Amino acid sequence: IQSKLPNVGTTIFTTMSQLAAQTGAINLSQGFPDFDGPQALREAVGRHVMAGHNQYAPMTGLPALREQVAQKIARSYGRQVDMDSEITITPGATEAIFCAVQALVRPGDEVIVFDPCYDSYEPSVELAGGRCVHVPLALPDFSIDWQRLADALSPRTRLIILNSPHNPSGALISRSELDQLARLIRGFDIYLISDEVYEHLVYDGVQHASVLAHEELYARACVVSSFGKTYHVTGWKTGYVVAPPALSMELRKVHQFVTFCGVTPLQGALADYMAAHPGHVDELPAFYQAKRDLFCDLLKGSRFTFSRSPGTYFQLADYSAIRADLDDVEMSLWLTREHGVATIPVSVFYQTPPAGLRLVRFCFAKREETLRQAAEKLCRV
Amino acid sequence: IQSKLPNVGTTIFTTMSQLAAQTGAINLSQGFPDFDGPQALREAVGRHVMAGHNQYAPMTGLPALREQVAQKIARSYGRQVDMDSEITITPGATEAIFCAVQALVRPGDEVIVFDPCYDSYEPSVELAGGRCVHVPLALPDFSIDWQRLADALSPRTRLIILNSPHNPSGALISRSELDQLARLIRGFDIYLISDEVYEHLVYDGVQHASVLAHEELYARACVVSSFGKTYHVTGWKTGYVVAPPALSMELRKVHQFVTFCGVTPLQGALADYMAAHPGHVDELPAFYQAKRDLFCDLLKGSRFTFSRSPGTYFQLADYSAIRADLDDVEMSLWLTREHGVATIPVSVFYQTPPAGLRLVRFCFAKREETLRQAAEKLCRV
Ligand SMILES: CSCCC(=O)C(=O)O
Ligand SMILES: CSCCC(=O)C(=O)O
Repeated sequence: IQSKLPNVGTTIFTTMSQLAAQTGAINLSQGFPDFDGPQALREAVGRHVMAGHNQYAPMTGLPALREQVAQKIARSYGRQVDMDSEITITPGATEAIFCAVQALVRPGDEVIVFDPCYDSYEPSVELAGGRCVHVPLALPDFSIDWQRLADALSPRTRLIILNSPHNPSGALISRSELDQLARLIRGFDIYLISDEVYEHLVYDGVQHASVLAHEELYARACVVSSFGKTYHVTGWKTGYVVAPPALSMELRKVHQFVTFCGVTPLQGALADYMAAHPGHVDELPAFYQAKRDLFCDLLKGSRFTFSRSPGTYFQLADYSAIRADLDDVEMSLWLTREHGVATIPVSVFYQTPPAGLRLVRFCFAKREETLRQAAEKLCRV
Repeated sequence: IQSKLPNVGTTIFTTMSQLAAQTGAINLSQGFPDFDGPQALREAVGRHVMAGHNQYAPMTGLPALREQVAQKIARSYGRQVDMDSEITITPGATEAIFCAVQALVRPGDEVIVFDPCYDSYEPSVELAGGRCVHVPLALPDFSIDWQRLADALSPRTRLIILNSPHNPSGALISRSELDQLARLIRGFDIYLISDEVYEHLVYDGVQHASVLAHEELYARACVVSSFGKTYHVTGWKTGYVVAPPALSMELRKVHQFVTFCGVTPLQGALADYMAAHPGHVDELPAFYQAKRDLFCDLLKGSRFTFSRSPGTYFQLADYSAIRADLDDVEMSLWLTREHGVATIPVSVFYQTPPAGLRLVRFCFAKREETLRQAAEKLCRV
């Protein structure tokens, strides 16, 4: 059979998590916590399942959960969104991104993505018959290179995919950068997908600049988030997408035939928990910043170099001083096999990796003990 | 925004379930039970959630669940499938069908579907850039019209979508029909998706003729099924797809970027339950046949005409003797609003409904009390 996605293999996340399991390495590769979601949230699942909430949810999601999302958005970003026409619950943020791409991208359209970028964007665009135009972020801080972005725009540009806080670098897009983007695309028929799954994981007192808080950009945007990231339950595969009514309508046309709806008892549990614990999201920055700082402080004793991640639960580190002879895929395999710590190479998120890139990504969504053990091994490298 | 799916509105299932809720009608429209899944299965979810099984499942599904599926397939159809290279757990059968279509259909390809057909097939094909060729099933028994099928084949035919037991009619494809299909497409480069989500809901002592039991057809097939239907938990959105290794590989390339994986604790609970209750599927025919027979016996007192559904949890009924002046959409609205029973019109599953079609679909996956109340109302029509 001729492949529809000839350039696609197994995702790096599957590959590295499998290798970690095989070798017994500490898994700081694929992004997921090694601790659990809140007990009250988990107990709520059992309640909903036993109470008989086990049949199809509405295609757009349980009203109680959409209401909680609307309230959270109002609290966090000062925007009133209409839960019926603007919020859609999805089986994970990946599905939300996929559906938004299918709804927006027509054969022959161009989609601008910023490299390094999450690995689902390009296959989603290809399956829609579109083509990704890759704009590398400026190093070392992974900021938007405005000249390269302007050069990449064309009459065929249909969509730009933003991702802030940025996976894998943790970089943040600022409010003034959003303004600059709005000016750049003003008057053009260009849509946005804003992947904000790490919206609540922002450190050092900085506020996340959400597209939801930006009137002009939101008018043409699908903003995607993830309960899995925010509530430490990545295996629940529940996310959502917020978009103006006309965009939501097109996205839902796709969503209803891709998966139809998300899981009912998980939606019910999330709604209950959010209603009872509206402060959960406000505690996340301190919670994860402590992990980042612990990990970085311990890593000071190593020969890795880095600057602290501004957001997400990922920390990049440069290993040039250790094994400049290895590319980052080789380095990740070597670290996993020889030093017992699994990482993600950064070059796999690039169409054309910058020459001499020597970065690996560590996930610090781990218990203190795990971070200590991993850092100890990394300091011995 | 220009629509990628201009012919698509909200699914009939959403529309009718909403109308049922608004009007307080008994909802025999969208297919889902009004009773719950097995208690031991539901309890298992709470166990897995509390035991901390809340992070990403493997992209292909939990090994324990794939193993149970392999064992069930061996018991039910005598086929040994390899759980690692042939079974993929998906967030519902709809996602499995969508991913199989995206993996197989290229722009310009033709896909044969048998009308009436499930409403996700055509949008899935359209999003892949393909075109559906609609072959109406022969009335009154919804069997394959071999002459029309042969006429519909073309050099562009890439895929045929089978669905047995058939939604909405309940019709079954026999083993000899599978043989006939195998002869018809022998030597052509044509794939199959076999939607068998109602595989265990087959009545009157008949055995389901699965493509899994057909050596020649399975070699080119993706066979889709649904835990939601089999375990009375449609809201868990968990299904699976079985395909030979080369096809599974292509399908997984799509799946990993559409949703990545299904929900971990639900997969764990299903694996536990299947291991402890392998006989569950064998009890389903009698369980649902009793419901079908109760409903049909009660409906004998009405002016609807019907022959008993051979499979699925749907029963078609002809209303010509009641309101031949109404088309089936009008009839469904009228039954819901005026008589308090929500149904699904059959014409919405057709590209070109046969002139004078006067059929509505009732879902009999309901408690005895619900079926009695509904039948009482229907006998008064
Ligand atoms: C869906 S597996 C990938 C998890 C993740 O977002 C990451 O590790 O970057
Ligand atoms: C996903 S909602 C549709 C349920 C169903 O399969 C049906 O009613 O036919």
